[in-house]
Amino acid sequence: MNDKAFNGARVLITGGLGFIGSNLARRLLEAGAEVVLLDSMAPEYGGNLFNIDGIESRVKVNISDVRDPHSMRYMVQGHDYLFNLAGQTSHLDSMLDPFTDLDINCTAQLSILEACRKYNPAVRVVFASTRQIYGKPDYLPVDEAHLLRPVDVNGINKMAGEWYHILYNNVFGIHGCSLRLTNTYGPRMRVRDARQTFLGVWLRLVVEGQPFEVWEGRQLRDFTYVDDAVEALMLAALDKNSAGRVFNVGGDSVISLLDLARLLVELNGGGEFEQKSFPEDRKHIDIGDYYADDNLIRSVLGWAPRVALRDGLARTLAYYREYLEHYV
Amino acid sequence: MNDKAFNGARVLITGGLGFIGSNLARRLLEAGAEVVLLDSMAPEYGGNLFNIDGIESRVKVNISDVRDPHSMRYMVQGHDYLFNLAGQTSHLDSMLDPFTDLDINCTAQLSILEACRKYNPAVRVVFASTRQIYGKPDYLPVDEAHLLRPVDVNGINKMAGEWYHILYNNVFGIHGCSLRLTNTYGPRMRVRDARQTFLGVWLRLVVEGQPFEVWEGRQLRDFTYVDDAVEALMLAALDKNSAGRVFNVGGDSVISLLDLARLLVELNGGGEFEQKSFPEDRKHIDIGDYYADDNLIRSVLGWAPRVALRDGLARTLAYYREYLEHYV
Repeated sequence: MNDKAFNGARVLITGGLGFIGSNLARRLLEAGAEVVLLDSMAPEYGGNLFNIDGIESRVKVNISDVRDPHSMRYMVQGHDYLFNLAGQTSHLDSMLDPFTDLDINCTAQLSILEACRKYNPAVRVVFASTRQIYGKPDYLPVDEAHLLRPVDVNGINKMAGEWYHILYNNVFGIHGCSLRLTNTYGPRMRVRDARQTFLGVWLRLVVEGQPFEVWEGRQLRDFTYVDDAVEALMLAALDKNSAGRVFNVGGDSVISLLDLARLLVELNGGGEFEQKSFPEDRKHIDIGDYYADDNLIRSVLGWAPRVALRDGLARTLAYYREYLEHYV
Repeated sequence: MNDKAFNGARVLITGGLGFIGSNLARRLLEAGAEVVLLDSMAPEYGGNLFNIDGIESRVKVNISDVRDPHSMRYMVQGHDYLFNLAGQTSHLDSMLDPFTDLDINCTAQLSILEACRKYNPAVRVVFASTRQIYGKPDYLPVDEAHLLRPVDVNGINKMAGEWYHILYNNVFGIHGCSLRLTNTYGPRMRVRDARQTFLGVWLRLVVEGQPFEVWEGRQLRDFTYVDDAVEALMLAALDKNSAGRVFNVGGDSVISLLDLARLLVELNGGGEFEQKSFPEDRKHIDIGDYYADDNLIRSVLGWAPRVALRDGLARTLAYYREYLEHYV
């Protein structure tokens, strides 16, 4: 990708102090963009000031919550690009408190888009969606023609949030598109718990020298290294052909959770895990295997993953061995 | 259907003073059910006290809004069946005020289901969804395997509302299912304007002796007479096989809007309409042809439409010739 296209571009990232947002910010800064990071710093989510360690003086940080339509109305103005990454991502939280999930993943998304429509209709918006909205696959790999059958409140609300973006593109001409991310991993992810992905808590525990849990283990998954996810987001923002479209983002390879656990232990130079059966209260969200068909984003936007799982995991382990204290 | 299954059943209908709700109430009363009608009587929607003319003393009316979680918490209790028909149905209103649509079609649905989960988990819930959530069909007739690609805020929110019902069935065991209704018509529909369907305003104008507008006219549609929709709702409530499922409800035949207009004028014994091109601001919601494949509900629930379009329209015209004053 030609990063120079972002030279001088004014960019707003919601969820900007989070995992993907902060990695995106770093790459955009290198490309010469003016970057504003909006984040609520709510402790349940991914925001972490250490994520911008070393670049604090080069980005503008604005603490506010996407649920606050007043600040959003002002904040969307004056930007060329909006990477809309703020979201509630936890399955369990969405089932315990579905209304908070709805506020963040639906109401706030609608208010961001309404603000864009009224105050910055020329902005180009990229929305971070999730493969979770597919539910249990009918076939593999899952392409964008697969039905959406979310298995939790979070999935339903993310589905609606994605569609608001497509709708505002189609009806109001606010350039919008959506990337359905799979398990994204890498430096700066939340590892305190499994709120972003189970892999976060695995990483933490293996680095701490504690055993981690593998539920079942035969499930197949794909994983995207965060730099590859960042590249997908940037390509989607730049390319006019992304308008009104939805793209799966996959990984470089497919692996079972058991093999992933083994790889993690190997790369860490030691560690333990325990295989368990799926907890009773989670069985309804056991979707079996999932991996994406991402030919659409490869052909339309020219994206391809560059970081192999083994390399990405090694880099991630190295990061948390050095900086774990800032994430627990 | 064996209506006796509802003898003595305690039934709550949200949107119960509206078009479909009030027709359903009449049939349930005949079957011997105890019927509570919950309605906000908000003037933009379908509630109309005249809809229960003659049965006022046999039903219990409770004026409250599904957006009020406090009254809903109480109201869902003590019922065997909940027909969840309250909704915002207007395309245009949803685009002008997306947050109200979200409150009614998402937040309120979630709060109804949460109330059921906490206070009446044995209730059986039937949700009134809409074919609008399909958007512009890829193929005809449209079956339930068709992707959902809503073309307005209303469609997105109804899609989420439907999925909450499926989810609460699958996760919490609250029996829930959803009927994707097409254009439903008949006595007691809103004819003051096109907020429920364009056919409402056609009926009003033709009865008033005024010309009505046909946009384009070649689009194919299917229509369900309200008694057939009521039967579908009742079958879905009774049959355990409906749990967690979504069913299209179609009509007895497919007709172009132009032919429908001609039929309406013929049955009315006169009238005029004007063919117009699609208004500019509506082009993005011009979905072309739609008609449902409803084999699933026919085979699983044994439903079939009984009232032909010609008969249904004639009955509807007769109703509004007599009672129009109560609907304008």
